[in-house]
Amino acid sequence: MDTLKNILARVSVRDYSDKEISDDEIRAILDAAMSGPTAVNARPWSFIVVKDKDTLAKMADANGKAAQLLKRAPLGILVCGDLDRAFRAAPDYWVIDGSIAAQNMILAANAMGIGSCWLGTWPQEEKMQAQAELFGLPESIVPHSIIAFGYPKAESTKQKLIYEEDRVHFERW
Amino acid sequence: MDTLKNILARVSVRDYSDKEISDDEIRAILDAAMSGPTAVNARPWSFIVVKDKDTLAKMADANGKAAQLLKRAPLGILVCGDLDRAFRAAPDYWVIDGSIAAQNMILAANAMGIGSCWLGTWPQEEKMQAQAELFGLPESIVPHSIIAFGYPKAESTKQKLIYEEDRVHFERW
Repeated sequence: MDTLKNILARVSVRDYSDKEISDDEIRAILDAAMSGPTAVNARPWSFIVVKDKDTLAKMADANGKAAQLLKRAPLGILVCGDLDRAFRAAPDYWVIDGSIAAQNMILAANAMGIGSCWLGTWPQEEKMQAQAELFGLPESIVPHSIIAFGYPKAESTKQKLIYEEDRVHFERW
Repeated sequence: MDTLKNILARVSVRDYSDKEISDDEIRAILDAAMSGPTAVNARPWSFIVVKDKDTLAKMADANGKAAQLLKRAPLGILVCGDLDRAFRAAPDYWVIDGSIAAQNMILAANAMGIGSCWLGTWPQEEKMQAQAELFGLPESIVPHSIIAFGYPKAESTKQKLIYEEDRVHFERW
Protein backbone atom coordinates (compact mmCIF):
# COMPACT_ATOMS: atom_id res chain seq x y z
CA MET A 1 0.00 0.00 0.00
CA ASP A 2 1.22 3.46 -0.88
CA THR A 3 2.81 5.16 2.11
CA LEU A 4 1.01 8.49 1.95
CA LYS A 5 -2.35 6.82 1.39
CA ASN A 6 -1.60 4.41 4.24
CA ILE A 7 -0.68 7.15 6.71
CA LEU A 8 -3.77 9.19 5.84
CA ALA A 9 -6.10 6.16 5.89
CA ARG A 10 -5.04 4.67 9.21
CA VAL A 11 -7.77 4.50 11.82
CA SER A 12 -7.96 2.80 15.18
CA VAL A 13 -9.71 -0.53 14.68
CA ARG A 14 -11.46 -1.96 17.73
CA ASP A 15 -13.49 -4.89 16.31
CA TYR A 16 -11.72 -7.80 14.73
CA SER A 17 -12.73 -10.76 12.58
CA ASP A 18 -11.71 -14.30 13.48
CA LYS A 19 -9.04 -14.36 10.78
CA GLU A 20 -5.71 -15.23 12.33
CA ILE A 21 -2.59 -13.20 11.81
CA SER A 22 0.10 -15.39 10.26
CA ASP A 23 3.64 -15.81 11.48
CA ASP A 24 4.88 -14.11 8.30
CA GLU A 25 2.67 -11.12 9.01
CA ILE A 26 3.92 -10.97 12.59
CA ARG A 27 7.46 -11.08 11.31
CA ALA A 28 6.76 -8.22 8.87
CA ILE A 29 5.31 -6.18 11.74
CA LEU A 30 8.42 -6.84 13.85
CA ASP A 31 10.73 -6.06 10.92
CA ALA A 32 9.03 -2.67 10.71
CA ALA A 33 9.37 -2.16 14.47
CA MET A 34 13.11 -2.70 14.27
CA SER A 35 13.57 -0.40 11.26
CA GLY A 36 12.77 2.93 12.87
CA PRO A 37 15.46 5.35 13.93
CA THR A 38 16.56 5.29 17.58
CA ALA A 39 18.61 7.85 19.48
CA VAL A 40 22.33 7.12 18.99
CA ASN A 41 21.18 3.88 17.32
CA ALA A 42 20.69 2.34 20.78
CA ARG A 43 17.63 0.27 19.71
CA PRO A 44 16.45 0.21 23.34
CA TRP A 45 13.38 -1.98 22.94
CA SER A 46 11.94 -5.46 23.31
CA PHE A 47 8.64 -6.90 22.15
CA ILE A 48 6.33 -9.45 23.73
CA VAL A 49 4.11 -11.08 21.11
CA VAL A 50 0.93 -12.55 22.54
CA LYS A 51 -1.72 -14.66 20.82
CA ASP A 52 -2.87 -16.69 23.82
CA LYS A 53 -6.43 -15.63 24.67
CA ASP A 54 -5.93 -16.00 28.39
CA THR A 55 -2.82 -13.83 28.40
CA LEU A 56 -4.50 -11.22 26.19
CA ALA A 57 -7.36 -11.05 28.70
CA LYS A 58 -4.90 -10.55 31.55
CA MET A 59 -3.08 -7.82 29.62
CA ALA A 60 -6.43 -6.13 28.98
CA ASP A 61 -7.41 -6.19 32.64
CA ALA A 62 -3.98 -4.98 33.70
CA ASN A 63 -4.25 -2.01 31.34
CA GLY A 64 -7.73 -0.79 32.22
CA LYS A 65 -10.98 -0.02 30.49
CA ALA A 66 -9.75 1.22 27.12
CA ALA A 67 -7.72 -1.98 26.71
CA GLN A 68 -10.68 -4.37 27.00
CA LEU A 69 -10.74 -4.71 23.20
CA LEU A 70 -7.62 -6.90 23.55
CA LYS A 71 -10.02 -9.65 24.62
CA ARG A 72 -11.43 -9.66 21.07
CA ALA A 73 -8.06 -9.31 19.31
CA PRO A 74 -6.11 -12.23 17.85
CA LEU A 75 -2.78 -10.55 18.60
CA GLY A 76 -1.31 -8.07 21.03
CA ILE A 77 2.26 -6.86 21.15
CA LEU A 78 3.64 -5.23 24.26
CA VAL A 79 6.37 -2.79 23.33
CA CYS A 80 8.91 -2.40 26.12
CA GLY A 81 11.86 -0.12 26.65
CA ASP A 82 15.18 -1.75 27.54
CA LEU A 83 16.90 0.65 29.91
CA ASP A 84 20.15 -1.32 29.87
CA ARG A 85 20.50 -0.37 26.22
CA ALA A 86 19.24 3.21 26.51
CA PHE A 87 21.42 6.24 25.68
CA ARG A 88 23.25 6.87 28.94
CA ALA A 89 23.37 10.65 28.59
CA ALA A 90 19.58 10.87 28.24
CA PRO A 91 17.87 7.52 28.89
CA ASP A 92 14.35 8.88 28.40
CA TYR A 93 14.85 8.81 24.63
CA TRP A 94 13.64 5.22 25.05
CA VAL A 95 10.11 6.65 25.13
CA ILE A 96 10.51 8.21 21.69
CA ASP A 97 12.24 5.12 20.30
CA GLY A 98 9.45 2.86 21.53
CA SER A 99 6.85 5.17 20.00
CA ILE A 100 8.57 5.05 16.62
CA ALA A 101 8.70 1.25 16.73
CA ALA A 102 5.00 1.07 17.62
CA GLN A 103 3.93 3.49 14.87
CA ASN A 104 5.98 1.55 12.32
CA MET A 105 4.19 -1.63 13.42
CA ILE A 106 0.79 0.03 13.01
CA LEU A 107 1.57 1.30 9.52
CA ALA A 108 3.08 -2.02 8.44
CA ALA A 109 -0.01 -3.84 9.68
CA ASN A 110 -2.32 -1.38 7.95
CA ALA A 111 -0.42 -1.96 4.69
CA MET A 112 -1.28 -5.67 4.99
CA GLY A 113 -4.96 -4.95 5.71
CA ILE A 114 -4.55 -5.58 9.43
CA GLY A 115 -6.21 -3.11 11.78
CA SER A 116 -4.77 -2.04 15.09
CA CYS A 117 -5.40 0.05 18.17
CA TRP A 118 -2.75 1.73 20.30
CA LEU A 119 -3.31 1.15 24.01
CA GLY A 120 -1.28 3.50 26.14
CA THR A 121 0.68 2.20 29.10
CA TRP A 122 3.58 4.62 29.70
CA PRO A 123 3.42 7.19 31.38
CA GLN A 124 0.72 5.70 33.61
CA GLU A 125 2.66 4.09 36.47
CA GLU A 126 -0.11 1.75 37.61
CA LYS A 127 -0.50 0.32 34.12
CA MET A 128 3.25 -0.06 33.68
CA GLN A 129 3.49 -1.81 37.04
CA ALA A 130 0.60 -4.14 36.23
CA GLN A 131 2.10 -5.24 32.88
CA ALA A 132 5.54 -5.67 34.49
CA GLU A 133 4.02 -7.91 37.16
CA LEU A 134 1.94 -9.90 34.68
CA PHE A 135 5.02 -10.77 32.61
CA GLY A 136 7.53 -10.84 35.46
CA LEU A 137 9.70 -8.30 33.66
CA PRO A 138 13.24 -7.59 34.85
CA GLU A 139 13.83 -4.14 36.38
CA SER A 140 15.44 -2.81 33.20
CA ILE A 141 12.49 -3.72 30.96
CA VAL A 142 9.78 -1.04 31.03
CA PRO A 143 6.32 -1.40 29.46
CA HIS A 144 5.69 1.32 26.87
CA SER A 145 2.48 0.54 24.95
CA ILE A 146 0.34 -2.37 23.85
CA ILE A 147 -0.72 -2.56 20.24
CA ALA A 148 -3.79 -4.71 19.54
CA PHE A 149 -3.93 -6.17 16.01
CA GLY A 150 -6.61 -7.92 14.01
CA TYR A 151 -8.31 -7.99 10.66
CA PRO A 152 -11.19 -5.52 10.84
CA LYS A 153 -14.60 -7.11 11.37
CA ALA A 154 -16.25 -4.58 9.10
CA GLU A 155 -14.96 -2.25 6.41
CA SER A 156 -13.14 0.46 8.33
CA THR A 157 -14.41 3.98 8.08
CA LYS A 158 -11.80 6.07 6.36
CA GLN A 159 -9.87 8.54 8.44
CA LYS A 160 -10.97 12.08 7.71
CA LEU A 161 -7.87 14.23 7.43
CA ILE A 162 -8.11 17.11 9.83
CA TYR A 163 -5.49 19.64 8.86
CA GLU A 164 -5.48 22.37 11.47
CA GLU A 165 -3.96 25.57 10.12
CA ASP A 166 -3.48 27.04 13.58
CA ARG A 167 -1.11 24.21 14.53
CA VAL A 168 1.39 25.26 11.88
CA HIS A 169 3.71 28.20 12.25
CA PHE A 170 5.98 29.37 9.47
CA GLU A 171 9.47 30.59 10.31
CA ARG A 172 8.49 31.88 13.78
CA TRP A 173 6.06 31.11 16.56
CA MET B 1 6.09 4.18 -2.39
CA ASP B 2 5.00 0.90 -0.84
CA THR B 3 4.69 1.19 2.93
CA LEU B 4 6.66 -1.88 3.95
CA LYS B 5 9.45 -1.08 1.50
CA ASN B 6 9.45 2.52 2.71
CA ILE B 7 9.70 1.60 6.39
CA LEU B 8 12.50 -0.90 5.74
CA ALA B 9 14.39 1.45 3.40
CA ARG B 10 14.36 4.56 5.56
CA VAL B 11 17.78 5.81 6.58
CA SER B 12 18.92 8.99 8.26
CA VAL B 13 20.06 11.38 5.52
CA ARG B 14 22.59 14.01 6.55
CA ASP B 15 23.72 15.53 3.24
CA TYR B 16 21.25 17.35 1.08
CA SER B 17 21.18 18.59 -2.50
CA ASP B 18 20.19 22.16 -3.35
CA LYS B 19 16.75 21.07 -4.56
CA GLU B 20 14.09 22.96 -2.69
CA ILE B 21 11.18 21.27 -0.97
CA SER B 22 7.93 22.58 -2.40
CA ASP B 23 4.97 23.93 -0.49
CA ASP B 24 2.91 20.94 -1.67
CA GLU B 25 5.50 18.57 -0.28
CA ILE B 26 5.57 20.44 3.03
CA ARG B 27 1.80 20.22 3.16
CA ALA B 28 1.91 16.45 2.53
CA ILE B 29 4.45 16.11 5.35
CA LEU B 30 2.18 18.07 7.70
CA ASP B 31 -0.90 16.10 6.60
CA ALA B 32 0.97 12.96 7.64
CA ALA B 33 1.98 14.54 10.95
CA MET B 34 -1.64 15.26 11.78
CA SER B 35 -2.85 11.79 10.78
CA GLY B 36 -1.23 9.73 13.52
CA PRO B 37 -3.15 8.52 16.52
CA THR B 38 -2.94 10.59 19.72
CA ALA B 39 -3.96 9.63 23.23
CA VAL B 40 -7.69 10.36 23.72
CA ASN B 41 -7.50 12.12 20.34
CA ALA B 42 -6.04 15.18 22.06
CA ARG B 43 -3.76 16.08 19.12
CA PRO B 44 -1.41 17.91 21.51
CA TRP B 45 1.12 19.23 19.02
CA SER B 46 2.22 22.24 17.00
CA PHE B 47 4.78 22.50 14.21
CA ILE B 48 7.22 25.26 13.33
CA VAL B 49 8.25 25.05 9.69
CA VAL B 50 11.57 26.74 8.95
CA LYS B 51 13.25 27.35 5.60
CA ASP B 52 15.13 30.52 6.51
CA LYS B 53 18.85 29.71 6.52
CA ASP B 54 19.63 32.04 9.39
CA THR B 55 16.92 30.52 11.59
CA LEU B 56 18.00 26.98 10.68
CA ALA B 57 21.55 27.86 11.76
CA LYS B 58 20.26 29.19 15.07
CA MET B 59 18.18 26.04 15.61
CA ALA B 60 21.28 23.96 14.87
CA ASP B 61 23.41 25.83 17.37
CA ALA B 62 20.67 25.70 19.99
CA ASN B 63 20.43 21.92 19.60
CA GLY B 64 24.12 21.02 19.76
CA LYS B 65 26.66 19.14 17.71
CA ALA B 66 24.47 16.44 16.15
CA ALA B 67 22.12 19.13 14.83
CA GLN B 68 24.74 21.00 12.80
CA LEU B 69 23.50 19.29 9.64
CA LEU B 70 20.48 21.64 9.82
CA LYS B 71 22.82 24.28 8.40
CA ARG B 72 22.94 22.28 5.15
CA ALA B 73 19.22 21.40 5.11
CA PRO B 74 16.60 23.30 3.08
CA LEU B 75 13.91 22.60 5.67
CA GLY B 76 13.61 21.94 9.37
CA ILE B 77 10.42 21.32 11.30
CA LEU B 78 10.34 21.73 15.06
CA VAL B 79 7.72 19.43 16.53
CA CYS B 80 6.32 20.82 19.78
CA GLY B 81 3.97 19.48 22.40
CA ASP B 82 1.00 21.62 23.34
CA LEU B 83 0.43 21.02 27.04
CA ASP B 84 -2.81 22.99 27.08
CA ARG B 85 -4.28 20.30 24.84
CA ALA B 86 -2.64 17.31 26.53
CA PHE B 87 -4.68 14.52 28.20
CA ARG B 88 -5.20 15.89 31.70
CA ALA B 89 -5.08 12.52 33.45
CA ALA B 90 -1.63 11.78 32.00
CA PRO B 91 -0.16 14.77 30.15
CA ASP B 92 3.12 13.01 29.31
CA TYR B 93 1.38 11.16 26.49
CA TRP B 94 2.29 14.29 24.53
CA VAL B 95 5.77 12.78 24.15
CA ILE B 96 4.39 9.69 22.42
CA ASP B 97 1.99 11.74 20.30
CA GLY B 98 4.80 14.02 19.13
CA SER B 99 6.94 11.00 18.27
CA ILE B 100 4.17 9.51 16.14
CA ALA B 101 3.71 12.79 14.28
CA ALA B 102 7.45 13.03 13.63
CA GLN B 103 7.78 9.45 12.40
CA ASN B 104 4.80 9.94 10.08
CA MET B 105 6.53 13.03 8.65
CA ILE B 106 9.74 11.08 8.07
CA LEU B 107 7.95 8.23 6.28
CA ALA B 108 5.85 10.63 4.19
CA ALA B 109 8.98 12.52 3.16
CA ASN B 110 10.79 9.29 2.33
CA ALA B 111 7.87 8.27 0.11
CA MET B 112 8.41 11.47 -1.89
CA GLY B 113 12.15 10.87 -2.17
CA ILE B 114 12.96 13.41 0.53
CA GLY B 115 15.56 12.39 3.10
CA SER B 116 15.45 13.36 6.73
CA CYS B 117 17.27 13.16 10.00
CA TRP B 118 15.67 13.12 13.45
CA LEU B 119 17.39 15.51 15.86
CA GLY B 120 16.46 14.84 19.45
CA THR B 121 15.47 17.68 21.73
CA TRP B 122 13.22 16.23 24.47
CA PRO B 123 14.18 14.93 27.05
CA GLN B 124 17.31 17.10 27.10
CA GLU B 125 16.31 20.13 29.14
CA GLU B 126 19.05 22.45 27.88
CA LYS B 127 18.11 21.79 24.26
CA MET B 128 14.41 22.25 24.98
CA GLN B 129 15.13 25.49 26.77
CA ALA B 130 17.33 26.76 23.94
CA GLN B 131 14.69 26.11 21.27
CA ALA B 132 11.98 27.63 23.46
CA GLU B 133 14.08 30.78 23.85
CA LEU B 134 14.98 30.96 20.17
CA PHE B 135 11.31 30.92 19.13
CA GLY B 136 9.93 32.72 22.18
CA LEU B 137 7.53 29.86 22.84
CA PRO B 138 4.69 30.22 25.33
CA GLU B 139 5.01 28.14 28.54
CA SER B 140 2.56 25.54 27.29
CA ILE B 141 4.46 24.82 24.06
CA VAL B 142 7.28 22.34 24.62
CA PRO B 143 9.96 21.49 22.02
CA HIS B 144 9.96 17.77 21.22
CA SER B 145 12.23 17.08 18.23
CA ILE B 146 13.58 18.75 15.12
CA ILE B 147 13.34 16.90 11.84
CA ALA B 148 15.76 18.06 9.14
CA PHE B 149 14.55 17.43 5.58
CA GLY B 150 16.21 17.59 2.18
CA TYR B 151 16.66 15.71 -1.06
CA PRO B 152 19.66 13.43 -0.59
CA LYS B 153 22.88 14.69 -2.14
CA ALA B 154 23.90 11.20 -3.15
CA GLU B 155 22.04 7.93 -3.61
CA SER B 156 21.25 6.82 -0.07
CA THR B 157 22.70 3.62 1.17
CA LYS B 158 19.87 1.21 1.81
CA GLN B 159 19.01 0.42 5.38
CA LYS B 160 20.14 -3.07 6.28
CA LEU B 161 17.35 -4.73 8.23
CA ILE B 162 18.68 -5.94 11.54
CA TYR B 163 16.13 -8.32 12.99
CA GLU B 164 17.29 -9.26 16.46
CA GLU B 165 15.74 -12.52 17.60
CA ASP B 166 16.60 -11.90 21.23
CA ARG B 167 14.41 -8.77 21.30
CA VAL B 168 11.29 -10.79 20.61
CA HIS B 169 9.54 -12.85 23.24
CA PHE B 170 6.57 -15.08 22.44
CA GLU B 171 3.71 -15.31 24.92
CA ARG B 172 5.94 -14.69 27.97
CA TRP B 173 9.10 -12.80 28.91
